[in-house]
Amino acid sequence: MKFATLKDGTLDGALVIVSRDARHALPVPHISHSLVDALRRWDSVREPLESLYRALNAGEAQGEVPFDPRACTAPLPRSPQWLDGSAFLNHGRLMEQAFNTPPIPQFDTVPVMYQGASDDFLGPYQDVPLPSEADGIDFEGEFGVVLGPVPMAATPEQGLEAVRLLVQINDWSLRALGPHEMHTGFGFLQAKPSTSFAPIAVTPDELGDAWRDGRVQMRLHTEWNGERFGEPHGGEMNFSFGQLVAHAARTRCLTAGTIVGSGTVSNKARSAGSACIAERRVIEKIDSGEIRTGFMRFGDQVRLFARYDDGREGPFGVIQQRVVRAQAPGHKAML
Amino acid sequence: MKFATLKDGTLDGALVIVSRDARHALPVPHISHSLVDALRRWDSVREPLESLYRALNAGEAQGEVPFDPRACTAPLPRSPQWLDGSAFLNHGRLMEQAFNTPPIPQFDTVPVMYQGASDDFLGPYQDVPLPSEADGIDFEGEFGVVLGPVPMAATPEQGLEAVRLLVQINDWSLRALGPHEMHTGFGFLQAKPSTSFAPIAVTPDELGDAWRDGRVQMRLHTEWNGERFGEPHGGEMNFSFGQLVAHAARTRCLTAGTIVGSGTVSNKARSAGSACIAERRVIEKIDSGEIRTGFMRFGDQVRLFARYDDGREGPFGVIQQRVVRAQAPGHKAML
Repeated sequence: MKFATLKDGTLDGALVIVSRDARHALPVPHISHSLVDALRRWDSVREPLESLYRALNAGEAQGEVPFDPRACTAPLPRSPQWLDGSAFLNHGRLMEQAFNTPPIPQFDTVPVMYQGASDDFLGPYQDVPLPSEADGIDFEGEFGVVLGPVPMAATPEQGLEAVRLLVQINDWSLRALGPHEMHTGFGFLQAKPSTSFAPIAVTPDELGDAWRDGRVQMRLHTEWNGERFGEPHGGEMNFSFGQLVAHAARTRCLTAGTIVGSGTVSNKARSAGSACIAERRVIEKIDSGEIRTGFMRFGDQVRLFARYDDGREGPFGVIQQRVVRAQAPGHKAML
Repeated sequence: MKFATLKDGTLDGALVIVSRDARHALPVPHISHSLVDALRRWDSVREPLESLYRALNAGEAQGEVPFDPRACTAPLPRSPQWLDGSAFLNHGRLMEQAFNTPPIPQFDTVPVMYQGASDDFLGPYQDVPLPSEADGIDFEGEFGVVLGPVPMAATPEQGLEAVRLLVQINDWSLRALGPHEMHTGFGFLQAKPSTSFAPIAVTPDELGDAWRDGRVQMRLHTEWNGERFGEPHGGEMNFSFGQLVAHAARTRCLTAGTIVGSGTVSNKARSAGSACIAERRVIEKIDSGEIRTGFMRFGDQVRLFARYDDGREGPFGVIQQRVVRAQAPGHKAML
């Protein structure tokens, strides 16, 4: 199944089912008003939703409308928790060199993960207001999983069983603020503004063989101001999503709707390019001794989308966002 | 005004006003069904709530019931964000010695803060299920503020103006897991299980002169298994709550209901005792060369309450919790 959420003025938005070809959407308020509500009542809403999904794909659904990704919020405009791993070790090792931070202990055996804000996600076409270009504005292309309830101390197998949906993420980062926050040991806070999501969240079965070994086996394409930036493959993830979920649940329960991210998708092969600017910069430094690429400027645009190994477009839709200067504090529109 | 939230099976619970003497409670579903809802519509609900609060205190309210803190969840059973500072530098410096972590850069000029889970808070009398005594189970007594909306890049003055309510917190910590998470630079995750709250959240005016300089000017009393553990004073906080809120809002908007914590209340004077075990342990080591105090065992109880400088009991009520062994994963009651 494919799901999206339409802006309707509420905090959780209005749930729609999206047809497999992403051309049509079907509001389902009689089954569930929001995606987080559906995730909380998954066992009772799953079959009715599947039945409508089949009808929608067959062109037999009552009340379908054209699907407009620009009318979408993030699939979950807010979620109970947003926990982001750093499961592509190639990325992590490059970041250590980029920011001259000490090697992370046990990095290849114990996942690292930070807790992000989950109350104010951005939709796929929403502008990204930030206070200053001097903060080192960067995108980070990721995949993620949306969970059903996970008990404390769950195993990786139980973690994987709890995966309800897969999502595509742009985890905005402010690179000038990150190293200090890492040095404090308290982790990222100012360095991580609101996170953005592609419009469509999908059940794992939609990916067929491209959901394998607890990993999204697809390339994540990134374009910056219309130019190709990279298309690293999600299969190179060093920890599975099951392992990430188990790490997150070690001493806490995860409530339904919790999102766990992969961290920046990153491949050893230089030919894959990168899914964030900081990585390209450190590669430039390593390979040529000189950083040539700057971070984003206000007005810049980033575009992210996934592709299957056979070249078909992925199921998540496109994130296409522009960075803009945040309005002065006190402006009502920002509250 | 004083507020509490009664368990009613919903995620946000049922809002009640609590009388100044904490003997009576008044359900107010016709004004607002939950505290987070009231915070979102503060400008329109404040006056009707104040009017009922006056009536309740005068014994003239319709529908009052006895106030039972054991029927309470946390004032906000979940909140949009939970951001915890470490604003008592005495505590921070002792923790560096306790866990042999490097000095935090700019610790006395830039607040440090981590993002905690905010979807699963514990109420004042709720048992605290944790997986293992070997994790180093510790309490942490704190004060905190609950905010209205705060725009990105707000000043400390704007941060302070956004304070709607004050709360008393037990920020549970697992000390065996913290140092590794600090060394990763990604911050606390497994080291911070669900946070607990005293039953009553109060508007700052309730404290009179004890809300001064953006600080809760009261002692936080802690008892462990019935024995006095410490009563450090909140006035010794090195950053004001206004400064903490501004730090949190540097690159993000804070939505109404966000909670910002002070970090463990801690005083330089040894006579004040401590509000967490880790601090007592490092003081034992510094003063006598030997750590004599262990962390909590299953079945142990902690009790926290505030007192005004004149000895009167504080307005937040009591946190009284018992640590218990978490049930095996998969147990439905934990989901």
